[in-house]
Amino acid sequence: MNVDLGNTIETTPGLTDETLDRLDDRVAAAHDRIVAGMEADEFGYAALTLPETTDPEAIRAVMDQFDRPAAVLTVGIGGSALGAAAISNALESDVDAHFLDNVDPDAVDALLADLPLAETVVNVVSKSGTTAETLANFLVVREAMAEAGVDWTERTIVTTGEEGNLRSLADEHGLPALDVPDGVPGRFSALSTVGLVVPALQGHDIEAVLAGGRDGMDALAGSLYESPAYAYGAATYALAERGALTNAVMPYAESLETFAEWFAQLWAESLGKDGLGQTPARALGATDQHSQLQLYRAGPPDKIVSLIRPTERADTTIPETDLDGLAYLGGSSLADLLDAEFAATEASLAAADVPNIRVEIERVDERSLGELLYGMEAACVLYGELASISTFTQPAVEWGKKAARGLLGGGDFPEADAVADKRELRIEQS
Amino acid sequence: MNVDLGNTIETTPGLTDETLDRLDDRVAAAHDRIVAGMEADEFGYAALTLPETTDPEAIRAVMDQFDRPAAVLTVGIGGSALGAAAISNALESDVDAHFLDNVDPDAVDALLADLPLAETVVNVVSKSGTTAETLANFLVVREAMAEAGVDWTERTIVTTGEEGNLRSLADEHGLPALDVPDGVPGRFSALSTVGLVVPALQGHDIEAVLAGGRDGMDALAGSLYESPAYAYGAATYALAERGALTNAVMPYAESLETFAEWFAQLWAESLGKDGLGQTPARALGATDQHSQLQLYRAGPPDKIVSLIRPTERADTTIPETDLDGLAYLGGSSLADLLDAEFAATEASLAAADVPNIRVEIERVDERSLGELLYGMEAACVLYGELASISTFTQPAVEWGKKAARGLLGGGDFPEADAVADKRELRIEQS
Repeated sequence: MNVDLGNTIETTPGLTDETLDRLDDRVAAAHDRIVAGMEADEFGYAALTLPETTDPEAIRAVMDQFDRPAAVLTVGIGGSALGAAAISNALESDVDAHFLDNVDPDAVDALLADLPLAETVVNVVSKSGTTAETLANFLVVREAMAEAGVDWTERTIVTTGEEGNLRSLADEHGLPALDVPDGVPGRFSALSTVGLVVPALQGHDIEAVLAGGRDGMDALAGSLYESPAYAYGAATYALAERGALTNAVMPYAESLETFAEWFAQLWAESLGKDGLGQTPARALGATDQHSQLQLYRAGPPDKIVSLIRPTERADTTIPETDLDGLAYLGGSSLADLLDAEFAATEASLAAADVPNIRVEIERVDERSLGELLYGMEAACVLYGELASISTFTQPAVEWGKKAARGLLGGGDFPEADAVADKRELRIEQS
Repeated sequence: MNVDLGNTIETTPGLTDETLDRLDDRVAAAHDRIVAGMEADEFGYAALTLPETTDPEAIRAVMDQFDRPAAVLTVGIGGSALGAAAISNALESDVDAHFLDNVDPDAVDALLADLPLAETVVNVVSKSGTTAETLANFLVVREAMAEAGVDWTERTIVTTGEEGNLRSLADEHGLPALDVPDGVPGRFSALSTVGLVVPALQGHDIEAVLAGGRDGMDALAGSLYESPAYAYGAATYALAERGALTNAVMPYAESLETFAEWFAQLWAESLGKDGLGQTPARALGATDQHSQLQLYRAGPPDKIVSLIRPTERADTTIPETDLDGLAYLGGSSLADLLDAEFAATEASLAAADVPNIRVEIERVDERSLGELLYGMEAACVLYGELASISTFTQPAVEWGKKAARGLLGGGDFPEADAVADKRELRIEQS
């Protein structure tokens, strides 16, 4: 992962070379703190050691108990699904990956009606084993398998903590079970069993994903000028302090669309605290040049745009044409066009003084993905250190969970009472 | 479409009942301006008359020239694709709809390799007939059809303006051609030929979509208290003025995910001007409760959350379970769970003084979709009036188009020269 901060200098909001120099002393101190946390296996910091602590053999050993399936269905929500989805959706495979990460009955029914259940591996992921959405979906999936005459105990993998419902279920039915790593919040678990089971079942090279993560780990250093991940984290932090409260993440590769979702979770849930944080807005190049770019260029000066691109990609030549005024396209290629759009967007933002950062990976493959995911996690941890934020907790998420549980009759929670207090001001269509 | 503004009163930022009362005089004046624009068929305002001016028979007449296809492939970008996608992706059909709305060679190749080209209808959409991405993709698709031995002239529909490349192509090869309506920017064209060809080919009731639009049209009135669309537009405008520069749109239905993308285009491209506007952030309930909600609840107070839900939906019972602590789920349903999550999120935001608006539609069907799309367009136009913004133009998008064209050798554009001036500050992974 390479990072170019050139277009954050003297923009609005913007940095100067001197800002970055001053910030670099704090980066050195934060790096020491991060390394100490990694060495002591502290909660959260442990995530940054996953490229070394994750055992791909344990994943392969479980995988080898299954014939190559037609599909993998992951039942999990939030961090239990998005890391796997970011890797899986970036890479081509003849094994389809699906994710039940919501409790929408229409979507669940439509998916189950289409899936070849007898040739599907079900991958249930919940650290606590009590996540309501995940368990409810799993109960529905299990029943659908039974109704289809499929023995669910033969086709289910569980990834969970050392104790809890899913662990008991695995013990009871002899299901293959993998451990969720200790001390790693879900949104930081892409490079563990949580993120790697699906790609492994799809035939991807998970050792290369981890090697890419190790490359990222080796590149951490006590200066933002020596570490692309820290350069990204430090610049986004400093820009947020100066008013860039939105970070629009715009990959120029459709295969990285889910990566942008994963990033949005990482950034929002880790840094959105104490009135601080930066709202991740997801965009896609070149598509969103035709819409979001208007706002980024001419709207409120409260944004940084992160332009992400692979420097190599497959290509498709555009056929020659005699269509009026389009001869210039013929003989060129779709990749040329996409690269020109990238350069045009970058220049367009710079010309309007909108700060933007270029993030490059070599190509969309296992190794580069590992590097990119690791790099953004390290960037996020650094940002949290610089902002003195509790990066690895999510207290505001817990409130809603209690309210929902109370509403469903799952216990007595004062949070549920607030629902009845809602003030109404309804405007109805007559 | 019903709107509940109760949770925007005395939040941070927030409104008061008096704010809304004062604003209502301006809503009345803006409504007069909008109605005058509709009556005079003025540029942009004409979009709000589409439910009456769009002729579904013209679309059906073209459709009837084709046997029911296996798939429809739309080649178009931005407003030429998103309206159709928002409707199509919300509804179930056995005719698959695909959208080539980017120029990513990997994605184009993967799609063309999978499509049954002989049973696919290709729907090319570009008002000018010169959009580089659309024409480049179309040239590639046309060649792929030829290589597969499919006569593309038998399987292509064109939706375009009265003149230009695509019109000439249609004339030359006798292709069925539909008119893009005059005076309607792409992002406002969902309820025209541009948005309705795909749903029609998929067997959906486009007359019901238009009827829903007419319901929305009939509900426009000179007071925000009488018009849900204006209530939404006026409240989001007033909140933006008070610091809510992000509008997080969170449907509680997976089928509305593309609607949220469509909304993001509408909002960003129409209102992101003169340093004003509101950044649309896309979220999905309940999934993003496990991530984005942390930021919305505890991050900077610069947000309004728009919670969108159908009041009726299909349902799936959760099987009974003896799993520890989960008995409360058994016998309940996925819809109960999703509704509880919705109520919990709404209360969670309100308890933290984060403004949020509830937008309800009856169910996800043709008529309600027409109503929702129309309502949000009217809300956007009202917001633009209140902010004195040029809602129907997109000057910042044009800059990048010229730069890209210049880079590709398609003419001499000074914008392209700016690309070479990029300031570099690269941090590379060693």
